[in-house]
Amino acid sequence: MVTGGAGFIGCRLVARLLAAGKSVHVVDDLSLGRRENLQEHLNNPKLKLTVMDMCRPEFIDLMVQDKPGQVFHLAANSDIQKGTTDRNTDLNNTFLTTFQVMEGMKRAGVRDVVFASTSAIYGEADGQLKEDHGPLKPISLYGAGKLAAEAYVSAYVHLFNMRAWIFRFPNVVGPNLTHGAIYDFVRRLHKDKTRLTVLGNGTQLKPYIHVDDLLDAIQLGITQPANPMEVYNVAGEGATTVREMAELVKAGLGYKDAVIEYGTSDRGWPGDVPKFAYDTSKIRSLGWKPKRNSREAVEASIKAEVEKLR
Amino acid sequence: MVTGGAGFIGCRLVARLLAAGKSVHVVDDLSLGRRENLQEHLNNPKLKLTVMDMCRPEFIDLMVQDKPGQVFHLAANSDIQKGTTDRNTDLNNTFLTTFQVMEGMKRAGVRDVVFASTSAIYGEADGQLKEDHGPLKPISLYGAGKLAAEAYVSAYVHLFNMRAWIFRFPNVVGPNLTHGAIYDFVRRLHKDKTRLTVLGNGTQLKPYIHVDDLLDAIQLGITQPANPMEVYNVAGEGATTVREMAELVKAGLGYKDAVIEYGTSDRGWPGDVPKFAYDTSKIRSLGWKPKRNSREAVEASIKAEVEKLR
Repeated sequence: MVTGGAGFIGCRLVARLLAAGKSVHVVDDLSLGRRENLQEHLNNPKLKLTVMDMCRPEFIDLMVQDKPGQVFHLAANSDIQKGTTDRNTDLNNTFLTTFQVMEGMKRAGVRDVVFASTSAIYGEADGQLKEDHGPLKPISLYGAGKLAAEAYVSAYVHLFNMRAWIFRFPNVVGPNLTHGAIYDFVRRLHKDKTRLTVLGNGTQLKPYIHVDDLLDAIQLGITQPANPMEVYNVAGEGATTVREMAELVKAGLGYKDAVIEYGTSDRGWPGDVPKFAYDTSKIRSLGWKPKRNSREAVEASIKAEVEKLR
Repeated sequence: MVTGGAGFIGCRLVARLLAAGKSVHVVDDLSLGRRENLQEHLNNPKLKLTVMDMCRPEFIDLMVQDKPGQVFHLAANSDIQKGTTDRNTDLNNTFLTTFQVMEGMKRAGVRDVVFASTSAIYGEADGQLKEDHGPLKPISLYGAGKLAAEAYVSAYVHLFNMRAWIFRFPNVVGPNLTHGAIYDFVRRLHKDKTRLTVLGNGTQLKPYIHVDDLLDAIQLGITQPANPMEVYNVAGEGATTVREMAELVKAGLGYKDAVIEYGTSDRGWPGDVPKFAYDTSKIRSLGWKPKRNSREAVEASIKAEVEKLR
């Protein structure tokens, strides 16, 4: 079962699982995910798509009925800004979906879960963050929802003899973006070819990872045992400033004369963590290495967005 | 406002606040709390008691209407075993009450919250646990609910310019117990005066703190600034084994010939953390020192329970 399997990351995971001959049951409420993301597989008899709000009790019934061999729980709100305005979004879509997954697994007797977590659970922390970093002080409701979800995963796996693989990753880019800076910049600059207004002063520095590199890490991580819970930080190599990204968008669209206007704040929006650095030695010690660095991941993603406009 | 103000800890906090001349609004669903705990103050015009399920939207309205100067958020499930069986208990009573408090404060423009957290958020961790300990891997749904709650407190205070004082404490004892080992042992041995059966092998070693010492710590901690969130570990001196507690109960009741029968497991129930040690140097550096050590706190609590039976 892949929750959020019609989403940006989910759809590419589903493609991999199907290619490996697995039967895949996608559960998605299509709030951010899109049916078109699974278009090429919809006739594959090994793919089942259930459109459902996972917070409903019917989801538990579905899990009990389906009894999947393994759950990839990717369903979540991924729009951090939206979560600050509509504060039920992360509560329902990020946290309560996880409670439902764990409770469904307990009732169904399903043991293994792979959970997509985030660097946002660390909040604003200094130094190279390892998986056992403390304290955890999220500054966004997205980060809070994910940390709350991890807390419940931890309790369920310890109480009910389950196993969990948790991957904490920052900004993921690639094809099929649903929102975010690249998605936004490309569309806005395409609309007004003369100028692009950027939130914040452009110095925000973040490591971007390509979705395919992330999936490589997840597929490798879950080959290792979880006793009962294993956490992996995953991030690409290097980092990219918002300024660099804006310039790459400008170059990608070919609007040489466009002016990029920056704000004054060192962060894009409330809850945005302006800078952080990640220690990924644990997943790297298994042999994982991203094929694209942060800039290459951003470039590939911009290219895919620009192609969609043409 | 004191949520859970009719409960074991809450009622004694309310008494202190009233004695200091404060107006107190208690919100309690009386699921564990009892009206009798506030009996001697019910005629005090400075006390208002609202019996309400805080998960209902009316709680937000109440907060907006009341606009308290400060919120002490103590409402929670405190029965760890019950939370494992009825898994909505901690979700609703421990976690969602906290979400409601933070959302209510945001809507009402209330800035300051004191939150009762727990050592259970650390899970089974070695060494002397400091406030910035990581990783946090709760093994009970009670611990998960409290960690999830802390995550939301963190995000709200960072996003909306609030301030939070979080106190993480382990087993609290004293008068007005509603459940737990002492409550249970005294009643069971009083019923069958010949034998007391104890879950686990009796070696579980835990630091007990007297409720009045805890309240001293909270009252001292909140005199210090929170920028925007300050976390304090609070625990008494020394620790008490279940075996010692059972012997003290036997002595307290005076049933010299009673046989105490132990189980074989090193923990009392699933989710129980058998041993942990706490670094409380942060709260101690402010000058706090418990008046009773763990054994004295347990003895005082047993005495109060025995008196209730006579």
